[in-house]
Amino acid sequence: MNDMLMHRRALLTALLASTAAATLPLPALAQGDPLPSWNDGPSKKALTDFVAKVTREGGPDFVPAPQRIATFDNDGTLWCEQPMYVQLAFALDRVKAMSNQHPEWKDTQPYKAVLDNDIATLAKSGEKGVAEIIMATHAGMTTEAFAKIASDWIKTARHPKFNKPYTDLVYQPMLEVLSFLRANQIKTFIVSGGGIEFMRPWTERVYGIPPEQVVGSSIKTKYEVRNGVPELVRLPELDFIDDKAGKPVGINSHIGRRPIAAFGNSDGDFQMLQWTTAGDGARLGMLVHHDDAAREYAYDRKSHIGTLDKGLDEGPKLGWTIISMKDEWKTIFKS
Amino acid sequence: MNDMLMHRRALLTALLASTAAATLPLPALAQGDPLPSWNDGPSKKALTDFVAKVTREGGPDFVPAPQRIATFDNDGTLWCEQPMYVQLAFALDRVKAMSNQHPEWKDTQPYKAVLDNDIATLAKSGEKGVAEIIMATHAGMTTEAFAKIASDWIKTARHPKFNKPYTDLVYQPMLEVLSFLRANQIKTFIVSGGGIEFMRPWTERVYGIPPEQVVGSSIKTKYEVRNGVPELVRLPELDFIDDKAGKPVGINSHIGRRPIAAFGNSDGDFQMLQWTTAGDGARLGMLVHHDDAAREYAYDRKSHIGTLDKGLDEGPKLGWTIISMKDEWKTIFKS
Repeated sequence: MNDMLMHRRALLTALLASTAAATLPLPALAQGDPLPSWNDGPSKKALTDFVAKVTREGGPDFVPAPQRIATFDNDGTLWCEQPMYVQLAFALDRVKAMSNQHPEWKDTQPYKAVLDNDIATLAKSGEKGVAEIIMATHAGMTTEAFAKIASDWIKTARHPKFNKPYTDLVYQPMLEVLSFLRANQIKTFIVSGGGIEFMRPWTERVYGIPPEQVVGSSIKTKYEVRNGVPELVRLPELDFIDDKAGKPVGINSHIGRRPIAAFGNSDGDFQMLQWTTAGDGARLGMLVHHDDAAREYAYDRKSHIGTLDKGLDEGPKLGWTIISMKDEWKTIFKS
Repeated sequence: MNDMLMHRRALLTALLASTAAATLPLPALAQGDPLPSWNDGPSKKALTDFVAKVTREGGPDFVPAPQRIATFDNDGTLWCEQPMYVQLAFALDRVKAMSNQHPEWKDTQPYKAVLDNDIATLAKSGEKGVAEIIMATHAGMTTEAFAKIASDWIKTARHPKFNKPYTDLVYQPMLEVLSFLRANQIKTFIVSGGGIEFMRPWTERVYGIPPEQVVGSSIKTKYEVRNGVPELVRLPELDFIDDKAGKPVGINSHIGRRPIAAFGNSDGDFQMLQWTTAGDGARLGMLVHHDDAAREYAYDRKSHIGTLDKGLDEGPKLGWTIISMKDEWKTIFKS
């Protein structure tokens, strides 16, 4: 073999290798197990069967890539929501951090209860009290200032039971679902009852979901030019609640297409899954069932948060899959 | 040369060709002129300079791909908005199409004026009259039914002057801008005062912009289960006006990032360009100036529609580029 030929062979080998990688992306399913933290079981089968169906060109359930939309609730579906919503923990920390600019809070409920760590009194203030705390801590600044506050907080705050950053308490099996879907050109969106601007500063880093694919509850904002500088100022006025029947409305407003797959964990997600799975063709509805007191929390029908009651009864009749964390997840949190 | 070697050569050639296409995507700038319908001039230079700056890794103005957001007004920026907004033409046609279910319209203004083609009387009904016509023709059906109505209409309706489908009256130079930006990983969004659900059924086909990247004005929707079928019903109630100071608000709500480039044609786009170009780093603000009566329309400061007055005076001081359709566009409409 002469040098010229050897040179050609080497070139050919290199080209074959790079061409295979570049022009022949194998289906995600074929590259080993895309869901290694899932035990074999009904949920893993539902996931892989669904993805195979909607991506099989020429098959009866094929969905063109641009129409492949999947929506995910956040609290309790992608990360831990007990013992209280992370955003409420944020609001309570903000009351404490802001209290020296608000000396009157020492003697005014529901702020006094927060400053005294008196959760019983705070709970008595009900939804109205919580809404007041949310507005006091989430409004009055620019959108960019709020994004920095949320972003700084999430880097340092710790979960009271697990003593870890909240962003470490995202579910490894669900991260794998996000990646698996995206590898199959299924676009992933968050559709959460949580605040849209509380989530957006960190969802890209933590879930690979960019701000424009986050739907959530919102307060109003106002465009102003202050001292020649254009700003968006957050107003203490409710704009939209992205929960229950609000979820299909939020999906329509932000996405403009009906999803083909939806993931939730509570009855707040019922309508989102109902709307999603009532569409034509292959559809996937999945509910995370928190039944693992040893590794996370066990709660459903009578929980103070993330109540799953109607979904447990009616979901299976509607073809939804109930995910058992205890039986189906090899690990719970991000590894 | 033996057969084996010939075979290898053919294979090598084929591989080189496919590898070049697959693994060596050249920057859009290097593949010939990405803006062939633009004459050399200040606008073309502003566009190519901006894209070169934000995509040059290691350069002072480099922007990571996920943060590359560009927003486009629709009416008058991407397609013809004279002699009336296309959506108003749609609403007037709908009044006629629906009139046999509404015999009372024959004797009731502003409907009578529409049925009589009496534009002077219709104009006298003012914004209130137009809003009434919009609600009567845009609400009361499901979101999916409305999408079909809009989609069917746009396929058959014709522009009164050019006698072509409206979707043929999109600007070829702007289609090239959309493609040029996307080839450089700049994500393109529509941010229009027009109805979000009027645009979404056809923006993907016409502009390559999917529904989830369309921001616009909206009416409220309500989620209902009717006879066991979940539906989103359009209500005759205003939700959001995506115009003037509403545009930065709509951008924040739907996209959650400040754009790095914004394109408009009227003072309704002023705040969008102001918000965009006030950000740090390289920014691009461009206004299409309708100064071509021969090939399209000429209008600016005193137009009944698409008024461009403040933007003409203040835009250049803010670093915005005014695009002369007459001087800078080789062709106007989609070729």
